[in-house]
Formats: sequence, structure tokens, C-alpha cells
Amino acid sequence: MKTLLLKKDEVRRLIGMTEVIGAVEEAYRAFNSDQVEQPDYIGIELPSPRGEIDFKLGYYKANEVISMKASSGGFIDNPTAHGVPNGMATIFLFDARSGALVCVMDGSLILGLRTGASGAVSVKALARKDARKVTSVETGNQARMQIRAINEIMQIEEIHAWDNNRDTLFKYKTDIESEYGIPVIVANSKKEAVEQADILITTTRGKGSLVEADWVKTGTHIVAIGTDQRGKQELDPEIFRNAKIVVDSIAQCAEKGETWHPLNKNIIAKDDIHGEIGEVLLGRKPGRESDDEITIFDSTGMAIQDNTTASKIYQNAIANNVGTFFQFFE
Amino acid sequence: MKTLLLKKDEVRRLIGMTEVIGAVEEAYRAFNSDQVEQPDYIGIELPSPRGEIDFKLGYYKANEVISMKASSGGFIDNPTAHGVPNGMATIFLFDARSGALVCVMDGSLILGLRTGASGAVSVKALARKDARKVTSVETGNQARMQIRAINEIMQIEEIHAWDNNRDTLFKYKTDIESEYGIPVIVANSKKEAVEQADILITTTRGKGSLVEADWVKTGTHIVAIGTDQRGKQELDPEIFRNAKIVVDSIAQCAEKGETWHPLNKNIIAKDDIHGEIGEVLLGRKPGRESDDEITIFDSTGMAIQDNTTASKIYQNAIANNVGTFFQFFE
Repeated sequence: MKTLLLKKDEVRRLIGMTEVIGAVEEAYRAFNSDQVEQPDYIGIELPSPRGEIDFKLGYYKANEVISMKASSGGFIDNPTAHGVPNGMATIFLFDARSGALVCVMDGSLILGLRTGASGAVSVKALARKDARKVTSVETGNQARMQIRAINEIMQIEEIHAWDNNRDTLFKYKTDIESEYGIPVIVANSKKEAVEQADILITTTRGKGSLVEADWVKTGTHIVAIGTDQRGKQELDPEIFRNAKIVVDSIAQCAEKGETWHPLNKNIIAKDDIHGEIGEVLLGRKPGRESDDEITIFDSTGMAIQDNTTASKIYQNAIANNVGTFFQFFE
Repeated sequence: MKTLLLKKDEVRRLIGMTEVIGAVEEAYRAFNSDQVEQPDYIGIELPSPRGEIDFKLGYYKANEVISMKASSGGFIDNPTAHGVPNGMATIFLFDARSGALVCVMDGSLILGLRTGASGAVSVKALARKDARKVTSVETGNQARMQIRAINEIMQIEEIHAWDNNRDTLFKYKTDIESEYGIPVIVANSKKEAVEQADILITTTRGKGSLVEADWVKTGTHIVAIGTDQRGKQELDPEIFRNAKIVVDSIAQCAEKGETWHPLNKNIIAKDDIHGEIGEVLLGRKPGRESDDEITIFDSTGMAIQDNTTASKIYQNAIANNVGTFFQFFE
């Protein structure tokens, strides 16, 4: 059995954002085509100042790959105490035809990439065709990744940005303008930024103040990224009342996504969720139907996105002779 | 982050049975000392002629190691179709202080070794001090492993062996006699073999006929290895009625071990289980109290056994400069 080992730098060189967007789109379609098994994840929570380590398993029947992602986060003393980042990730790929471990790759880049790509996939399916203005509420790494991905699939004319932290905000402006040549307008308030949006992207840690319902103009597409566990929240649940709500997984979003909040407050019922993004991509449910709709994409993240993205990286590595083979047994 | 890679041959050279017995004993003690977290395992079942792949997670607080074992089994076409065994295993060790992946080792030998060792640990705690005759009901690989382990901790005078398959049985006799110099008496019937036992080891696939209650003489210690899932069975549940029942994990054994059968038939109640082997090893509960008792050790196997065994192998590798370091990121 030969196992391919891929380092972080190799992973970086082996895949571009366009391919990640394709892989995530494939993941969503597969999820709604009975091609996916994703058991509940398992993990260990460690006492502070450590965080948690989680194991997420996904099986994609069409490509016969089983992926296991081990990811840690919240080990705040790591850089000083152990000389490693406060979160790390490794992805293990198994050939589902034999059970063999075919690849071990560093997974630290994949979460950011596939989450960025998920926003872009939703923009293709749900944003107005004439959308040009993007608003970033909070401006950390994932906000940049969203821009990187959306910039691959449409022309962004200007970005309105808001962040509680002025340093982060101005660094975001400098970086985005130099990297993509898209003008970034620093908003005086979150309200001002939101009011400008054709596409509104929220990537907050989800514990700050919310985006309020009456700031959101008709026709806006909202990409709600930050909320992936109970207790986090980014949006006034009133926004959901008359919006078209599309999620990655109804089971996950109703349980721990942004959608949990309006459900919990009885602002919407489960039946008011329009559907899963895979259903829209497969043409089973309509995407945006008018320029006046407010559309919301609630993303909690799924193991199958790691699976298809890591599989693409693995295929590219094999095709380009990148990586190191290791034989665990003869 | 540097990750140590260990091949099967290196694993084989890095640990002896005595150390595995020590590691398993440590695992049992740890399990009953609030030092262990073992979430439910997750897995994927594949359609025939493929089998399943399981992921078992264990955290040992005292040594701050998190282990994840990926193991596959039942891929019956593997040798011909893919040139790999029908079951494979890999163990991943994470440093719980940082979340870093510190070791990836082939795990194919560890299940056999630690399961063999578990029988020996139970013999130390529960068999009569004057026990000399061991009976093997079925004579496959795990039956040999049990002998290898028990032979480390006591003097076996003779082995009585029975197997439905005469070829397997005679090969077992030849191998055991040449390897350990212990005479193996081929029994004419299972009954005849069982009646001879001071220590009775059952390692059947658990779907054949059972060891009957009136064959088991007083004072016998039974090591019940084969039953680790619902549907398997090796022993007439009547054997449990007046026996001292010791298990690796009450939760697991009551759910899917040999102990499930007498519980299900109301031959015993849960309170009739004497305790977990760790409690006996820690001196919290007595082991054998008289030469007349029939003792049963029901073992379903626990992730923490993989954890302590693999940790010992990892420590030995570091101490002896064995293995290959791979740096997944700088």
C-alpha cells in the first residue's frame, strides 16, 4: 500500500480557487443526489487554554473516496508554548474500493478555501445577475477568502466594508485594493455598509451585534458564513421572515446554523426553508426568481466539501507527480 | 510540525508482547481512573464484497495522547482485486497538549497484539494460580496470539484444541508446538476440549455452536474474545448464571459483548456483573476469591488499548531513532 503525503506548500500549489469552487459545487450536488454519507462528527474538548479536536468523516460514493478530517482549534498558547499554530488540520483519504489509506495531506488551507468557495457557489445560484456591490461585515481571513472566490465568478465593482476593529478594516482595504484592484469603501457604520449591499457577506465570530432587518434592501443576497454552532448569531432573525432561505444542509442549519434563530423564535417554520443549495444547483428547486427577493445562504460546512476538495488536490498531485509516497507496508 | 511515520515492519520490531501486556493493563487501569475519553466510534459500511471502515477515537489524559484508529475489514476481494489485505489499519497519534499530529503508524499488528494481551491480563487477575491447562476453542490467528500472551505470564503445561476446520487445527498444533514447545492435544470434540480447561479461550467468529454450560468445570477461567458485536455468540448464556463476570467495559459488553446474551435472557441482571477489569486491577474489587469459582472475562476491545499500545511503540521509536519524520508544514 502506497500513501501519498502532501505538505501545506504543495497543497497550496496544487489547487486554485476556480477548482475549489467546482469541487464545492460538486459536493453540494452530490449531497442531494444520494451520493454522500456523513456520520456525526466526533471530537475531544480539552480544558482551557487548549481548544478542541474534531474528526469529520465523509464518503462520496461517485468517486469512491472516504475522507477523514482531523482539525484542531482554539489552542491559544500553541504559538508560544509549542511553536505551532493554534489550529491545525490534516485530511486522510481512503480508497473506498479497498479501504486503503491513499493520501495524508495538510488540511490547514482547505477549510478557508472551501468555505470561501461556498459563498461564491451561492452567489452564482442566488444573487441578482446585475449585482456589483459586495459588503463585508467583518474583514478577517474568511472575508478575504469570500472576495477571492466571488471575484472568480463575477465582476465586483466596489466593496463596502465594516469591522469593529479599525486596524483590521484598513488592512483589509489595503490588501484587497492591491490584490484585486477593487475599491474598498470603509463604512462609518455597519448600517451604512449593509445598505449598500447587492451581496452581503457576514463572517463574524457571531457574538457581536447583529445585522438588522431594516438595513437590508430588497434584492440583496446574504451569504451567512459565521454561524456554525449553537450560540453564534450574525443576523436579526426578522430578516428571515420574508426571505428565500437556502442552506447547505437543512439538518445542520436547523440545528446549529443561522437558521436556528428564526426557527427558535417561530419567525419561520422548517417548511419555510426554500431548500438545500444542492437542490437549486440540480434544478430541482428554483434559485432567485425576482430582482426584489432577499435571498439568504446559510452555510454550516459539510465533510463532503472537504472530501471533494481534497480529492481534487490528490488527483492533481498524482497527475503532476507532486508529493512523497510512503509505503506503510509491503 | 514533524510527524513520525512508522511502517508495519518497524512496528513489529518496536514492541514485544510483554510491553503490550503492560500497555493493556495500563489502559484498563486508566479507564477506571477517569483518565480516558472514548467517544462512540463512527464508520462507513460498504456494499458486499466490501466490508466496513471504522474510526475509533481515544484520549488518555495521563499521557496527553489522542489516538484515532482507522481500520477496515471484510473487503474479501482485496487480495485479488487490489493487492492489499482484506483488512487494514492505521493509527494516528495527536499530542493533546497542542493538537499536533505526531505519529502515523501502520496499525495492522496492534489489534491482534492488544487483544492477545487482554486475555493474559485477565488470566493474571482471574485464573487460578495453579492453572496449567489451556483450551483453545477455534485455532485461528487470535487463538495463537492468546497463547503467545498467556505464555509470557504463566507456565502452560498443555493445550487442548478444537476447531471445526481440521486443517487449521493441525496447523495450529504444529506451529504452537514448534514455537513454544507446549504440547497441543487435538480434541475429538469441543466438549472434550472444554472439559480439560483450567483456562478456556474462545476466539470463534461467534456464529457457530456454543460452549455448553455443563462442559465447564468449576474453577475454570474463561476468556471470551470473539463477541464484539450484536449477533455474535460463543457461550451458552447459562454459564453466566453462577459465574464471576468481569468485563472490559460494562457499557460495551452489556450492549454488544458476550454478556448481552445472558442479560437479554434475564439469566443475569446488570448488577450481577462483578465489575470492570480495571477495577480489579486497581484493587477496588476482588479478583478470583476461591478455586471453585468460574470466572469469565468478556472483552469487546477499547480504543484506549490502541492508544496505550501505540503510544508505547511511538516512545520506543523515538528512543531508538526508528521511523521517518515528515514535516507537513514548516
